Amino acid sequence: MEVAKVCHMNGGTGDASYAKNSLLQQKVVLMTKGINDEAITALYRNLSPETICIADLGCSSGPNSFLPVSQLIKTINEECKNNCQQSPEFHIFLNDLPGNDFNTIFWLLPAFHEDLKKQNMGQDGLDQPKCFVTGVAGSFYTRLFPSKSLHFVHSSYSLHWLSQVPDGIENNKENIYAATTSPPSVHKAYYEQYERDFVTFLKYRSEELVKGGRMVLTVLGKENEDRFSKGCHYLVEPLSMALKELVAEGSVEEEKVNSFNIPGYCPSPEEVMYVVEKEGSFTINCLETSELHLDASGESMAQCMRAVAEPLLVSHFGDGYVLMDDVFHKYRGIYVNCMTKEDAMVTSVIVSLTKIN
Amino acid sequence: MEVAKVCHMNGGTGDASYAKNSLLQQKVVLMTKGINDEAITALYRNLSPETICIADLGCSSGPNSFLPVSQLIKTINEECKNNCQQSPEFHIFLNDLPGNDFNTIFWLLPAFHEDLKKQNMGQDGLDQPKCFVTGVAGSFYTRLFPSKSLHFVHSSYSLHWLSQVPDGIENNKENIYAATTSPPSVHKAYYEQYERDFVTFLKYRSEELVKGGRMVLTVLGKENEDRFSKGCHYLVEPLSMALKELVAEGSVEEEKVNSFNIPGYCPSPEEVMYVVEKEGSFTINCLETSELHLDASGESMAQCMRAVAEPLLVSHFGDGYVLMDDVFHKYRGIYVNCMTKEDAMVTSVIVSLTKIN
Repeated sequence: MEVAKVCHMNGGTGDASYAKNSLLQQKVVLMTKGINDEAITALYRNLSPETICIADLGCSSGPNSFLPVSQLIKTINEECKNNCQQSPEFHIFLNDLPGNDFNTIFWLLPAFHEDLKKQNMGQDGLDQPKCFVTGVAGSFYTRLFPSKSLHFVHSSYSLHWLSQVPDGIENNKENIYAATTSPPSVHKAYYEQYERDFVTFLKYRSEELVKGGRMVLTVLGKENEDRFSKGCHYLVEPLSMALKELVAEGSVEEEKVNSFNIPGYCPSPEEVMYVVEKEGSFTINCLETSELHLDASGESMAQCMRAVAEPLLVSHFGDGYVLMDDVFHKYRGIYVNCMTKEDAMVTSVIVSLTKIN
Repeated sequence: MEVAKVCHMNGGTGDASYAKNSLLQQKVVLMTKGINDEAITALYRNLSPETICIADLGCSSGPNSFLPVSQLIKTINEECKNNCQQSPEFHIFLNDLPGNDFNTIFWLLPAFHEDLKKQNMGQDGLDQPKCFVTGVAGSFYTRLFPSKSLHFVHSSYSLHWLSQVPDGIENNKENIYAATTSPPSVHKAYYEQYERDFVTFLKYRSEELVKGGRMVLTVLGKENEDRFSKGCHYLVEPLSMALKELVAEGSVEEEKVNSFNIPGYCPSPEEVMYVVEKEGSFTINCLETSELHLDASGESMAQCMRAVAEPLLVSHFGDGYVLMDDVFHKYRGIYVNCMTKEDAMVTSVIVSLTKIN
């Protein structure tokens, strides 16, 4: 499976689309507003560029695509207003994999501009912000931008996706990710893939950012280095269980499920820190974890997971029949029965970085 | 009708798509290679930027979208190779209206990169070009880019589209464009809309280009200031005739056709020169016309016209029935009967500009 070709959120604006099912991701963006605000404000005070170039990596498609950059723009406009300065221009680069539905992003662009205009209305003496949005299709595990062309990189709930399913995890039969019951060799393979990918990511971003450029990354993670990730448990385990039920019912071949693994890894803050220090291009301004309660509705969680995982599942299992409906019908039931009895949470790891040289 | 919302080429890669029916536009790009090469080479010799920022305005979607920028990149790479210099990085901005099918562009991106790689293979001592492509959705009659952020602007067969159908041409009943038989007031209204739009275009581009930045624009035009445009005659007149036939057959209301006008104008070189000098931000390096023979096949011309005009027609006439098939079936017949007996030609006006300050 080539992840860069099949890993994307469901496009469009229909019932199963990511655009309509991304409340969790929206909460995460709102939760990290403080850290983002601190970083962009410090950047602007230090460098005061006439045009601020901001990339959002893994922007997906839907109203969420504009949420992080809207907040960043408003923060800078407030800062400028407070200091009676003219706002800079903003060059915004929204990135995701080539399979992402960029058309939906571009259709939403007029509403984004309209919203910006409203927010700044009546601020006499200040011009409307001049904000120019572009779409960039490609894997963030490759170079995406010219050298020293970016001031700020934001990425929310994207970097837990790996560039590929790790090699050598054929023995992860019972599971579809690095689960608590997976063999130690599977955990090792997943971690090593994560480390390689995150080093690659940091290396390329360090080439693209100006000196003093800032980066705020939020990933689905885990609290510490033990094997347990709440996020994986509550979000992915119901999918694993749903697939097992379909095998038991004879709707899906066992071998097909045994060979399916999700190209994702939930790192701990220690793992994030280790890789950043190993790669060496960035200093850590701030590294923290945050807990979010999951929506209690099985329906909304099933839709949320479907928007994220359906293209991956279709690429492995095929879409010739009603399998996807079955999978997420079961997901909903399992989530309601198992997860809502517990206090379902996910852990996010948030890191704010400055490029050294 | 809001042109920015409805004026785009047919998306996708099906039989009626622009991607499959844009041979004429491809010929035009190949025809202007010399002028483009001269302009980009002069730019590079004068400014030698580490990253060349190039915008293609009205890129549409399909393999043609990459043709002009591929040529420009290859020209610079040749220039660098000849001078034993390292190639610069390229930041490419492909622009069209928000309704354009950007997803198709992004799906074609890997093939574009593959092609670039092949072309430069075996050039020892020289790195592969680092080329970063972005999509930009918006009307080129608005600001699209930050101030002084572009080195080169290319636009081919796009600027004959106006920002709107001119006001006050209710008396253009018999025609759907500024035809030879249209009243003088209609020609005046079309020209004035063209002048306003082209001034707006030049003003915004002059803000976006660096000093000394270059721009090469090619439009469907006419040889001189008389009313006759070969391009309009051979390409648009069959559409006008097809609609009249449908009225005669009772398939379309006469009033519906009377109120339909195409938001396009084919300028003469004198008109282009007049507006450039009036606006004042650019000097003209070169201004010429060029004639192209049209493909003799009625089928391919009907498909070409359909890819361009269908969204406009659908927005005016609706798509609730088989009208579009009827229109272009008739178009093909008319083209074969009337146009292929003559030596069907179109006139292009090509202008190469340098930003003064």
